[in-house]
Amino acid sequence: MLWRDLKAWQIYGANTDVGKTIISTVLCKALARRAPTNGLLYLKPVSTGPDGEADDRHISRHASGVLSKCLKQYSKPLSPHLAAKIDEPNHQLNSRVGKLNAADRSLLQNVKDNLDAHQKDGGKYALLETAGGVLSPGPSGSVQADLYRPLRLPVVLVGDAKLGGIATTISAFESLHLRGYDVQSILLFDLPQWGNAEYLRDYFSHHEIATVCLPPPPEREADQQKDYDQLAAYYEKLSSSSEVGSTVDLIHQKHFSHLSKLTSMPAHAESIIWHPFRQYGLPQNVVAIDSAYEDHFEVYNQEMDALVKKAESSDTGLQPLQSMASSGPLLTPLFDASASWWTQGLGHGNPNLSLTAAHAAGRYGHVMFANAVHEPALDLCYNILSTLRNPRLSRVFFTDNGSTGMEVAVKMALRATAKRYGWDDHNGEIGIIGLKGSYHGDTIGVMNCSEPSPFNEKVDWYKPWGYWFSPPEVKLVKGQWRIQLPADDSMPREEGPTTLFPSLQAVFDFDARQEDAQFYADYIARTLTHLTHQQKRKFGALILEPLIMGAGGMIFVDPLFQRTLISSIRADPGIINHDHQARGAASGTADPVSWSGLPIIADEVFTGLYRLGRPSSSSFWNTSAGSGPEADISPDISCHAKLLTGGLLPLALTTASDSIFNTFISDSKADALLHGHSYTAHPIGCSVANKSLDVMRTISASAIHSNPNGGSIQPTTSPKPSSGLWDGYRQSWSSDPDSDVFSFFSPKTLSTISNHQLVNSCFAIGTVLALTLESATSGYNSTAAASLQARLLTTVDEQGRGVHSRILGDVIYFMTGLETSEPEVRNLERTILRALDGELAAQR
Amino acid sequence: MLWRDLKAWQIYGANTDVGKTIISTVLCKALARRAPTNGLLYLKPVSTGPDGEADDRHISRHASGVLSKCLKQYSKPLSPHLAAKIDEPNHQLNSRVGKLNAADRSLLQNVKDNLDAHQKDGGKYALLETAGGVLSPGPSGSVQADLYRPLRLPVVLVGDAKLGGIATTISAFESLHLRGYDVQSILLFDLPQWGNAEYLRDYFSHHEIATVCLPPPPEREADQQKDYDQLAAYYEKLSSSSEVGSTVDLIHQKHFSHLSKLTSMPAHAESIIWHPFRQYGLPQNVVAIDSAYEDHFEVYNQEMDALVKKAESSDTGLQPLQSMASSGPLLTPLFDASASWWTQGLGHGNPNLSLTAAHAAGRYGHVMFANAVHEPALDLCYNILSTLRNPRLSRVFFTDNGSTGMEVAVKMALRATAKRYGWDDHNGEIGIIGLKGSYHGDTIGVMNCSEPSPFNEKVDWYKPWGYWFSPPEVKLVKGQWRIQLPADDSMPREEGPTTLFPSLQAVFDFDARQEDAQFYADYIARTLTHLTHQQKRKFGALILEPLIMGAGGMIFVDPLFQRTLISSIRADPGIINHDHQARGAASGTADPVSWSGLPIIADEVFTGLYRLGRPSSSSFWNTSAGSGPEADISPDISCHAKLLTGGLLPLALTTASDSIFNTFISDSKADALLHGHSYTAHPIGCSVANKSLDVMRTISASAIHSNPNGGSIQPTTSPKPSSGLWDGYRQSWSSDPDSDVFSFFSPKTLSTISNHQLVNSCFAIGTVLALTLESATSGYNSTAAASLQARLLTTVDEQGRGVHSRILGDVIYFMTGLETSEPEVRNLERTILRALDGELAAQR
Repeated sequence: MLWRDLKAWQIYGANTDVGKTIISTVLCKALARRAPTNGLLYLKPVSTGPDGEADDRHISRHASGVLSKCLKQYSKPLSPHLAAKIDEPNHQLNSRVGKLNAADRSLLQNVKDNLDAHQKDGGKYALLETAGGVLSPGPSGSVQADLYRPLRLPVVLVGDAKLGGIATTISAFESLHLRGYDVQSILLFDLPQWGNAEYLRDYFSHHEIATVCLPPPPEREADQQKDYDQLAAYYEKLSSSSEVGSTVDLIHQKHFSHLSKLTSMPAHAESIIWHPFRQYGLPQNVVAIDSAYEDHFEVYNQEMDALVKKAESSDTGLQPLQSMASSGPLLTPLFDASASWWTQGLGHGNPNLSLTAAHAAGRYGHVMFANAVHEPALDLCYNILSTLRNPRLSRVFFTDNGSTGMEVAVKMALRATAKRYGWDDHNGEIGIIGLKGSYHGDTIGVMNCSEPSPFNEKVDWYKPWGYWFSPPEVKLVKGQWRIQLPADDSMPREEGPTTLFPSLQAVFDFDARQEDAQFYADYIARTLTHLTHQQKRKFGALILEPLIMGAGGMIFVDPLFQRTLISSIRADPGIINHDHQARGAASGTADPVSWSGLPIIADEVFTGLYRLGRPSSSSFWNTSAGSGPEADISPDISCHAKLLTGGLLPLALTTASDSIFNTFISDSKADALLHGHSYTAHPIGCSVANKSLDVMRTISASAIHSNPNGGSIQPTTSPKPSSGLWDGYRQSWSSDPDSDVFSFFSPKTLSTISNHQLVNSCFAIGTVLALTLESATSGYNSTAAASLQARLLTTVDEQGRGVHSRILGDVIYFMTGLETSEPEVRNLERTILRALDGELAAQR
Repeated sequence: MLWRDLKAWQIYGANTDVGKTIISTVLCKALARRAPTNGLLYLKPVSTGPDGEADDRHISRHASGVLSKCLKQYSKPLSPHLAAKIDEPNHQLNSRVGKLNAADRSLLQNVKDNLDAHQKDGGKYALLETAGGVLSPGPSGSVQADLYRPLRLPVVLVGDAKLGGIATTISAFESLHLRGYDVQSILLFDLPQWGNAEYLRDYFSHHEIATVCLPPPPEREADQQKDYDQLAAYYEKLSSSSEVGSTVDLIHQKHFSHLSKLTSMPAHAESIIWHPFRQYGLPQNVVAIDSAYEDHFEVYNQEMDALVKKAESSDTGLQPLQSMASSGPLLTPLFDASASWWTQGLGHGNPNLSLTAAHAAGRYGHVMFANAVHEPALDLCYNILSTLRNPRLSRVFFTDNGSTGMEVAVKMALRATAKRYGWDDHNGEIGIIGLKGSYHGDTIGVMNCSEPSPFNEKVDWYKPWGYWFSPPEVKLVKGQWRIQLPADDSMPREEGPTTLFPSLQAVFDFDARQEDAQFYADYIARTLTHLTHQQKRKFGALILEPLIMGAGGMIFVDPLFQRTLISSIRADPGIINHDHQARGAASGTADPVSWSGLPIIADEVFTGLYRLGRPSSSSFWNTSAGSGPEADISPDISCHAKLLTGGLLPLALTTASDSIFNTFISDSKADALLHGHSYTAHPIGCSVANKSLDVMRTISASAIHSNPNGGSIQPTTSPKPSSGLWDGYRQSWSSDPDSDVFSFFSPKTLSTISNHQLVNSCFAIGTVLALTLESATSGYNSTAAASLQARLLTTVDEQGRGVHSRILGDVIYFMTGLETSEPEVRNLERTILRALDGELAAQR
């Protein structure tokens, strides 16, 4: 909601009865002086009380030449959520705090449409007046500051001049501020006996917000005409006063400085930021993100803007007004289809997460974690283990991101192996076992856990330490699910025999796939024995990204292959160790959940915590869905980040089993795991993670037949009612309401996509959809998907919203949040299909 | 403010005139039933208006057997900040939003003393009633929720039942919540016409807070006795009602669950957390941090508690009452003397940082940064460069912590060197040049930048890649500043000739130390030429921690040595490269700020951003204090974290010069710097960093003679008035008010410490004080300082506050925040001296 020409503000009140309408009238009159007739729209979205007393009428009466409009008038002078119930007996209240419901969205759309229409008509100003205080409920019961947050209009806050008004005004400001609003100016009446104006002016100067004091309106008169005249005189005088004039100047200036900052951001960024993963020698369109809400960015796209400006400046023969109108909104909503690099779960600008973060900041700030403990960190340990339900895991180590979390995992595993097998050298002889296409982060230690690739080939200290299997991939090709089995390790992965599946679920039916399992087991044993016995190579860990290797190109690995790899290594430690004595040590423990053969590390940074529909993606290695991982195939170490904080800020956890933990116990400090970042277990991150895990547990639960919230570890919160938000998704994939092999994207759309001429193969699981496009070249250096990606930015839906996606060579992928609604997902699917068709048409 | 026996709550009101005193009276009466006579203290810290109408009188009248007390009564019924001005003409208002002044602290101390005395008298309950709304000003003008925050008593919030009260109640809750308060219950009158009670009950159930509705009090009567009787009957009935009874039960239960959670935290932590740097085979006392404020933790120390309980349970012959009293408060305030692992700058629980964090969360959440830009990140780029004022730096790369920031720095430097010198292999042949004792983080890549040490010897993939000079150290020994020059690299560092200095400032007088400089230059050239020409070793970067190597043991390196190392490598690239052709390339650029010889990396993660008193600690390599680094000795890359966010949450920046940046430009994606964590440049971190840098700039500026806020890079904010907070510290070290070689710790105390029998040497600069203790063994494995560290926990000042410090082998260090006041620092100094004397006495 930002235009070059139309300037819109929202008027909030610090409390009810603080003079919001009077001050709005003053502003309307002052702005109307600067606008042509009907150039100013006064909009009251919701009004309660008798029609004749409505605020929009007051404006009409006192500010001529102003378009005045009320969108919804309820008859009783009550809070709108009560007034609506009286006028509309079937009125439903919103039951979710901080989340909008359908009625909220429809009201918002109405406001947007009115503002858009006003802009198209050449409107210069709009004032949107709210009802009651900042957090007074709207008709649905959603508090107004939440309700109007998607618009994020700059705010003029009307302060409270009465006794107690210092407190209510500052609190109202804080409630707006923590919801991401920009409060541009505070206006209040000057009642010197309470001293509020003087106090607030000083207070808000610390927040660089101007506070303006106005003389209060005259006392009401019994005589109607006299009352009107007196008020009219007050308005006339005040609206032409210097205080009001300079306020109007100020909010104008803030409009232009916002515009100028926004539109210059890409160019400034170009000169001072060193962007991640960016080749500055290649042209790149940098988008400026003004704000974000739920699944959408609000983006200024300089390329689109340049096109518009070019059209304007050329001799088009358009009238000035039409030309202005053609410039349209400066901000485009774009669906954040990479979930902001795979982090988002609970939506951008989520007020519950903001408040949770602020509480932890207020209670602790950051407090050091060495030999110390605080409630959010301790709660998070129980919370993550009860979420994962992996019987092996018992200890939690904190770091800051997936990469550092995996560095810790690797340090843990290598030490455990080296100690048990009596290897203790620094010659870099101990490698890891992984899959080709894996990726574990950008720090050099974990880069060394991946095979050579364009990601690491120019990192001077990169040294690949390990062996990587070619993974058999799961793909949907022309409506058919298929897996190519590995033929031999020396052959390219395309050449193995192909197995076909009637459904995605069938891939996970391991009982029916015993032949494939045997095939894999033989292949794995042959390969590993050759490496360890013939080549005498040493390995310290098996590292797997459960199901999907993300950065490596969204490779969906056959879960049966990963499962067999783990069980092969666990069952016969000899296949990874040729030394008989060490082999004895490897199996020499009676503890059934002690690591065996090699420590198994699950890198769940991308795939874990509901990204693929389950709390833990290692659980996909299970034979039975819906429960936690089985002890015999669950990892000894698992690493979590990204979605852990719901998508708000960095935090990572590396969880490990007792048998790993015990490796580091001795009487020497030097044997300890000497790792720890200074913000380790920072209370904000831990608090937000606890909140997020609780919310994710609720939203993922089926309302039809709840999953058991079991596990032996004590839950930190009482069980919540399940939301049933995912029931529709589950139903579209399976008749089993508890099915945990499903996607937000529909199987029908997926089949259509797989049959599209431009698509080589695709898959969808959980919140992820990935398309491998037909392309002459493949891999990270391919640019095949770039054209579709660019098209999606401008392939808008009925609400003018495009799609911001990320590509990996010839792969383009899409990801939703965990609360993305079914209509939103279906809408995204339609946009993707339209963009694919558009690409095809353009190629012809 | 937490005891086993005494339960204290604070009553806040959602607005003025919501019935706070009436509900307090009801609670008093209900609690008094459960307590012995005088077992309940009602405390009104500040009251305004005629004495006879005061709230404490009302309580006395209606709740017998309750101790009722008002600490400060102002005569006029106004906001306390106005009433105080009338009664006390010299009354000064607090000018700093969110920071307490002396009057605030004195009021708080009075409250604490009263609560302590009540507890010692066997008191069972205390209710503290505030005045007006949550954010109404106290007498100094500080808002009450800030003023009483250090107590962090659990809150009973009295809701607003009037029209508009939904908004004011939720906003009041949010203002409390973001300051770290625990709101345990909300009580309000039931005025069904507005529906507030019903709405709020549902709303707060989402925050798991019970909302209780009470019948409103009777209408006032003209007849005084009748009015009293009627109100008394109301109180009698209500205080024995089931609603109030269950509310009292609930807040009791929350008290006990807080106690039980707090006291069980250490044991739970023991079983589930894997603490950083901890050897679980050695006994360790884990402290539970309940909250933190400014420089202090509020800590439950299980060992101290065990001692108390032991004393209680033993047959001491004490009366029950005395025994109870002896148990004292459960929480001990401990000065956070490691600044929470070197991160803290602006104090724990800083409301301005909380609000800043919340705003960014509300506006963006996290938004992806690849090919995108947002305002907080862009502002931070300008902000950091204008803070550092290093003419070489022009580009900013974002990561999550110091370790990842240094990984990026190393990747940048190695690539630049390898490309210019035509080295392009992965044999690990390119090392770095550094100093012995350096440390750059815990990820394996940067661990490889340090010489072998106990930190890395058990990291299996650790491989030292470089050469490390023995650094000449600056020490104060028996009141004398001294530096031992290196004799020869093969000799231990203790054996070089010693230079003495009359003052710390004299160490930085490089013009007067030209002989030392020449000595260093010869030594460096000899050593490097031998390595590169005889041994044919290759180097890719010089990495230095300016002035102090922190994790390596608080080693204060002669800045002249670091300066000479840089200028030697820059002036004659031949000393680091034996290849003539490459040497030509090295000096073949006309750009005066292009890197020469080797890229120079400053790891300012610990020492930068005001930790040592200057914005950048590389600036200590300058000949003239007070300005930014000179181009000829400033680093090409510098890395910043920790204090960057004022001590709130993780964020790191790696800044680089154009000549480094340009290395990565080509037409191939694979040549780009392919590094980027998913929360790269997260908006919360960037926003908090911007706020912190602005505040730090203001507080560090001298009020006597302001430093120029210069530099060619555009400042992002208008210049602020300087606070003069550091003027006293500067004056104690130098007569020059602009001197930038000084410490928060006084030179007098430092001299006393250096002459202490237990101290081998010490130093202080900026906020850091480090003591090397006399010890039989030295280094990381030494436990010499552990005894002093333990003693400091229980060496309390007059306010019962101990010191939480960290040790590194035989070194114990202390660190303040950037806003720590002079009285606090002097108090800390006294405690340290007392603890040293205590140790000495114990050893005799």
